[in-house]
Amino acid sequence: MRTRVKQLFVNKDFYQEQEVEIKGWVRTNRAQAQFGFLNINDGSYLENLQVVYDNKISNFEEISKYRVGVSVHIRGIIKLTPNLKQPLELHATFVKLLGDCPEDYPIQPKRHTREFLREVAHLRPRTNLFSAVFRIRSVAAMAIHTYFQERGYVYVHTPLITCADCEGSDQMFKITTLDLNQLPYDQNKVDFSKDLFGKQAFITGSGQLQGETYAMAFSDIYTFGPTFRTENSNTKIHANEFWMIEPEMAFCDLEELMDIEEEMLKFVIQYVVDHCPLEIDFCDQFVAKGLKNKIQNLLNSKFTRITHHDVVDILKNAKVKWEFLPSYEDDIAKEHEKYITDYFNGPVFITNWPKDIKAYYMKLNADGKTVAAVDLVVPEAGELMGGSQREENLEKLLARMEELHINKEEIDWYLDTRRYGGCVHSGFGMGFERLIMYLTGIENIRDVIPFPRTPKNCEY
Amino acid sequence: MRTRVKQLFVNKDFYQEQEVEIKGWVRTNRAQAQFGFLNINDGSYLENLQVVYDNKISNFEEISKYRVGVSVHIRGIIKLTPNLKQPLELHATFVKLLGDCPEDYPIQPKRHTREFLREVAHLRPRTNLFSAVFRIRSVAAMAIHTYFQERGYVYVHTPLITCADCEGSDQMFKITTLDLNQLPYDQNKVDFSKDLFGKQAFITGSGQLQGETYAMAFSDIYTFGPTFRTENSNTKIHANEFWMIEPEMAFCDLEELMDIEEEMLKFVIQYVVDHCPLEIDFCDQFVAKGLKNKIQNLLNSKFTRITHHDVVDILKNAKVKWEFLPSYEDDIAKEHEKYITDYFNGPVFITNWPKDIKAYYMKLNADGKTVAAVDLVVPEAGELMGGSQREENLEKLLARMEELHINKEEIDWYLDTRRYGGCVHSGFGMGFERLIMYLTGIENIRDVIPFPRTPKNCEY
Repeated sequence: MRTRVKQLFVNKDFYQEQEVEIKGWVRTNRAQAQFGFLNINDGSYLENLQVVYDNKISNFEEISKYRVGVSVHIRGIIKLTPNLKQPLELHATFVKLLGDCPEDYPIQPKRHTREFLREVAHLRPRTNLFSAVFRIRSVAAMAIHTYFQERGYVYVHTPLITCADCEGSDQMFKITTLDLNQLPYDQNKVDFSKDLFGKQAFITGSGQLQGETYAMAFSDIYTFGPTFRTENSNTKIHANEFWMIEPEMAFCDLEELMDIEEEMLKFVIQYVVDHCPLEIDFCDQFVAKGLKNKIQNLLNSKFTRITHHDVVDILKNAKVKWEFLPSYEDDIAKEHEKYITDYFNGPVFITNWPKDIKAYYMKLNADGKTVAAVDLVVPEAGELMGGSQREENLEKLLARMEELHINKEEIDWYLDTRRYGGCVHSGFGMGFERLIMYLTGIENIRDVIPFPRTPKNCEY
Repeated sequence: MRTRVKQLFVNKDFYQEQEVEIKGWVRTNRAQAQFGFLNINDGSYLENLQVVYDNKISNFEEISKYRVGVSVHIRGIIKLTPNLKQPLELHATFVKLLGDCPEDYPIQPKRHTREFLREVAHLRPRTNLFSAVFRIRSVAAMAIHTYFQERGYVYVHTPLITCADCEGSDQMFKITTLDLNQLPYDQNKVDFSKDLFGKQAFITGSGQLQGETYAMAFSDIYTFGPTFRTENSNTKIHANEFWMIEPEMAFCDLEELMDIEEEMLKFVIQYVVDHCPLEIDFCDQFVAKGLKNKIQNLLNSKFTRITHHDVVDILKNAKVKWEFLPSYEDDIAKEHEKYITDYFNGPVFITNWPKDIKAYYMKLNADGKTVAAVDLVVPEAGELMGGSQREENLEKLLARMEELHINKEEIDWYLDTRRYGGCVHSGFGMGFERLIMYLTGIENIRDVIPFPRTPKNCEY
């Protein structure tokens, strides 16, 4: 039975002087005349296991020539080494090559640029950096499920394929089973009756509307799945495929929504800190100095709650030459977000946004000008979550849809949430990659997605 | 602070004689002259809370007219009722209407057919049946994450958008940002250089190949996400969008793969039994009599392991008039699966399949005729998982790709898993909906997916 390297480190006293068997990949091989050292990583742990081998092993000569990247099977005795850099070593009695690796293996024990590693996205998880990043990503996903499930939320798999283009079909990928080189036409228009669904279909950018219908049954639900945007923008923070979390809560107003957002974010971050201490240390040391401090500050802070109007007042009074002039009618620019999080020295919930820059389904406030929306802006991360209380009043919702030319017929089912036992309810969306960038200090979204999809880039 | 109905039932002694506040939806209202009963469901629990109201409440007249489906806010005192059918009641002191519901509300307290409920998929989670089904679905998802994360597997978000059509582009939806009514053409072919990714893109039916590259870094990984098939087949077990789990393990052969499959399946089923006792009871009573027995039998059974060849021997010797004649070269038909699970009285792993009916990446056995593939067939469910040891030998893999005309250039990155420290490795796929159908006894896949997508059917 093979032992995972992580087990050896975590239960080292148990394994002292025990014979163990491991399988993994050689990260380095330092061979000398009579003995040598292999650093082995099996992916279970960020640290490598140091394996000592000597010329008492029959294939010593062969082992000493193992190249970086080969996979091996090793048996030996665990020795604790409290006086050395590494806490333990494996003294090999048996070493066998499982899979060879040529000289030109791209992942060598040296610093590779992240740009280079993006070109070998299928190999980069074999580096310490991406081993840390993608383990954090995995654990953060588990943290999110744990938070919601422990609190009785129902995880809803909302559909990705949709025929309603209420998001505006420009924003969505079209999907089809038709041969694009030989589309069937009828009166100069594509005849979608021949397509699989009998009409034009898309992949969607949000499960919110379907999520709301489930919140009207289960009270508390969440979605967590892939999401798509067709944006043709090559920035460090945009990808065309990413993962999103969209919780939706019945009987929940804007204040309660903020309570949940704050509690969830702290829970998830604390969970990752608890489960990935080595990985966070690594990112603090090699990706973003001060990362641990930043995270600890967030965990210790009480998030500020302030209206958009009051934020603009602060910005207007600031002695700063803005690139974008703050305005009561407009969005908050990146430079403003930064100023505000500095001003309050922590995360800030900005509430009650001008209705004209927000979505039709958000609750209109009594002033008739603002909606009960909330964005959470976080130091060094910018906007991390966006949510709102939903307009539960059918007449007001219909009026707003009319104003914005939203097709009512297409989402009549959605309006049923307001017709049949409607109630005050709220929800938010969090881009999962934003969270991972925050937790790792990584600045480019391409480095927190295993195989990122961006304009002109769809490899692997 | 609002209390969830589930809390009242689970901690009923704590709440005895306590004043509580609840919010939920009226499932029934039985009003009499001086008093009445509301059955309230807030989605946290399968059972309704019985609320007693009487004419000491100022708006008694109004309450007694509440229709099915309205949402309400109620305050009152919890009374334990050990001699009644329900273990507790809420004696209301305050009842307020939150959202009204018209007479023609489709979800009335009577039996609705599942066909009818599919037509109101956005409302059906408000019924007991779908409340049970979709809570089981949510909890089963958590069970899967728990199983893998507790064992150190890394959850990998493999991409859905792909440009490699190695699955055969007929099997995949094409996606585009181009206007289908005005496609740009170059020499009579669509000019995909104008598309977002600069070439023809698809949404994929599997993350396995990308998953394998991550297994070569982390040893143990899994995916869990939506998957797409373009199959134009209207059956009870096919949908065009469904969720799939695809674990992939380095240093794992076919025998170990079966160990993992069996352990995982039992873990997940036990987890759901433990966390959803009411829901399983409900399905046993109203969906599939004997469900609990079936589940308990699976948990207690040791799964049989037998080769495809030996299965065919058994089928040939059976005194049965087969619709499909058993053959050493062919797939196992539904009727055969049923015979074999009956024969062994439990789940059966069928191994070593004829290579010609399996995928190119499966490990060729020494006989040169079969591959180290395994299907798990389960009583009353049929095939629940399919997996294989992968061909780790580059030359053999290339030869097989050549035979099957798989484009090598397009997935050259995949071949790197065999070039750079390759090793024996294995993986499997499990359709999540199959599992939910097994756990609930539901026979139509449309009833275990919140908003199912099937040919000509893409509503909501």
